[in-house]
Amino acid sequence: MTAQPFVAQWGILGCGWISSEFAKDISFPTTSRGTTDVSHAIAAVGSRSLPKAEEFIKKWCPDGAIAQKEGHVKFAPKAYGSYKEVVDDPNVNIVYVGTMNIAHYEDAKLALEGNKHCLVEKPASLNAAEWNHLVSIARAKKLFLMEGVWTRFNPMMLAVQKAVHEDDVIGEIRCMYSDHSMDVYKKRPDTDRLLSAELAGGCLLDIGPYPMVWTMMILYRHPKNQRTPAEKLGSTMMKYHTGVDLATGFTMTFPKLNAIAYCTTNLLSCVQQKQNTRIVGSKGEILVHGYTSRPTGYTIRRFIDPESEGAKCHPDEEVKHDIQGFGLYWEADEVARCLRDGKTECERMPLEETTMTMKYFDQIRKEGGYEFLPGLEKVKSE
Amino acid sequence: MTAQPFVAQWGILGCGWISSEFAKDISFPTTSRGTTDVSHAIAAVGSRSLPKAEEFIKKWCPDGAIAQKEGHVKFAPKAYGSYKEVVDDPNVNIVYVGTMNIAHYEDAKLALEGNKHCLVEKPASLNAAEWNHLVSIARAKKLFLMEGVWTRFNPMMLAVQKAVHEDDVIGEIRCMYSDHSMDVYKKRPDTDRLLSAELAGGCLLDIGPYPMVWTMMILYRHPKNQRTPAEKLGSTMMKYHTGVDLATGFTMTFPKLNAIAYCTTNLLSCVQQKQNTRIVGSKGEILVHGYTSRPTGYTIRRFIDPESEGAKCHPDEEVKHDIQGFGLYWEADEVARCLRDGKTECERMPLEETTMTMKYFDQIRKEGGYEFLPGLEKVKSE
Repeated sequence: MTAQPFVAQWGILGCGWISSEFAKDISFPTTSRGTTDVSHAIAAVGSRSLPKAEEFIKKWCPDGAIAQKEGHVKFAPKAYGSYKEVVDDPNVNIVYVGTMNIAHYEDAKLALEGNKHCLVEKPASLNAAEWNHLVSIARAKKLFLMEGVWTRFNPMMLAVQKAVHEDDVIGEIRCMYSDHSMDVYKKRPDTDRLLSAELAGGCLLDIGPYPMVWTMMILYRHPKNQRTPAEKLGSTMMKYHTGVDLATGFTMTFPKLNAIAYCTTNLLSCVQQKQNTRIVGSKGEILVHGYTSRPTGYTIRRFIDPESEGAKCHPDEEVKHDIQGFGLYWEADEVARCLRDGKTECERMPLEETTMTMKYFDQIRKEGGYEFLPGLEKVKSE
Repeated sequence: MTAQPFVAQWGILGCGWISSEFAKDISFPTTSRGTTDVSHAIAAVGSRSLPKAEEFIKKWCPDGAIAQKEGHVKFAPKAYGSYKEVVDDPNVNIVYVGTMNIAHYEDAKLALEGNKHCLVEKPASLNAAEWNHLVSIARAKKLFLMEGVWTRFNPMMLAVQKAVHEDDVIGEIRCMYSDHSMDVYKKRPDTDRLLSAELAGGCLLDIGPYPMVWTMMILYRHPKNQRTPAEKLGSTMMKYHTGVDLATGFTMTFPKLNAIAYCTTNLLSCVQQKQNTRIVGSKGEILVHGYTSRPTGYTIRRFIDPESEGAKCHPDEEVKHDIQGFGLYWEADEVARCLRDGKTECERMPLEETTMTMKYFDQIRKEGGYEFLPGLEKVKSE
């Protein structure tokens, strides 16, 4: 008989698409992914409209998440017509902020000021200044805070990192290419969250975090890089007529590795299933399959003779991984463990790395001439 | 019986690798590629060392090129121990400059000042100012001048252009990714032409012209772009310890198309045979096979439902093309036709487009902090 798992008791803010994926994901049996030490309950769901929150629960989690179904906790999910009520619900010990990007700062702030731990969806905020303010609140109150860059917790990300950093599968790291794009242009209206200036749309903040996370995890976190920030970050942005970025490219250099990351993101092209991320080393290369955000496998391509140029390769070796649901549960499990262990920060997604990437995004937007509409940023970066 | 072909009578400057590929290529039977109107002879070959020129002829063209073998002209190739003698040889009507990149300007100048037409290997020169000076000489003397961006004349390039610009195979153009890289790092000595500062090495000028030519041919020359220069050109460069660029990325935007080109070039990674260039449109995408410089085919991937997002694709359609030799003859044929027709400029590789790309390279080097060693540039750009 196993010990009772620690249960993260979630309060979900926002009833949109990503919150529904989160609710569904934390309702899967934890053991189906080998998790036995932690579990998840949905204590409360909030929307600005009470019927929407009620509808959300009815549709996605009528019996709560897995901890409720398995009887580890007794409460049922409660619906609220305000975010404040979710934060105040005594059954909530961690708030998941799944609201629109423009509201992340205010909603996370509400959670922290209500003395609740907080997981906020990527992008953490609109700029580094907003994020730094959230960090200062969390630190003052000794609360857990994390940006939900879920890809960091995906087992394929862990496997690729291990292959590159520990197992020397591709030898010395040389360079990487990472793309996350969506074919939204001319398919969605200008009022869509990705295209609207009012909603701080554009590709950089919404899907740009994915090429960024691969760069951070593979190059920035490479043992030989010793957590040295990118020396250069150059970028180019093409704007949409609404003022948001339709396409952006950014390149980061890591001189300690002599390695470079070419990152691309746009709203013009659909995902390439076989190699949205390509990582090249001296002995071979790894092509990551599936969405950059949600890898479902990878190809290892070993050079027959790594000493010679224009390397010929051994037959591709493929590693595949079926994902149940959307795959946000690995991140949720990790957050639950942090709470159980009394940690206010997760080593795999520390506050400082979010600060760093938000500063990079600030710089890329500045270079690209993308200024948010007045009033969207609640705290302005220098 | 067909008419006698017009014969380009080449004087080759430089006896290195690319000159040998050129000599071999213009020695293939022209009819094997469907060419009957023009042909090629090698009138003279020059090196700074006479034995090297003699050795070159003995090894690559003892009986001359195809026009000599087929009896269209009577002279045999002559070896010279200086470039000036090649230019002065009365049998030479066009000079091929296949010398080191740092010598292109001076050697092309020598040819033009000797009243000979001139094809100069890419990169045309070290900077836009050198090139502009060559253009002014050629125009004053009404001589033919062209940068040898041979990829422009490759039939696969023509086929992809036709598919995108005329046949609407991929619908509206959205974006493209183009890479040309070589895995030279830690495999060649620092004195190698690609790594040496003395030889103005680095990836940008030597292999960067290939992602650039795809961008120019597909986006700049897109009918809807109306030859409008890129609005933005952003770049990032990582330097090698010798001072040359080890890796560079540059991105160009074409607002008339709402399209972007992500270009990458480095000395860190080997070529991907299946998709060094990916061109994405609203109805499908094209992946170009083989070296970016020397495409040997392409894949057409049509979306099943171009109106929906995250497009699923019909099975890949592959077009393949076996290249005899290296493939420089298509360019040589075109140059011969220009000479035959009394043209001083080739519409497919006009002087102005070389000026434009040399200015882009100047800008990228400036942004990347790559300054040539003093004395290498014979004319300095502003």
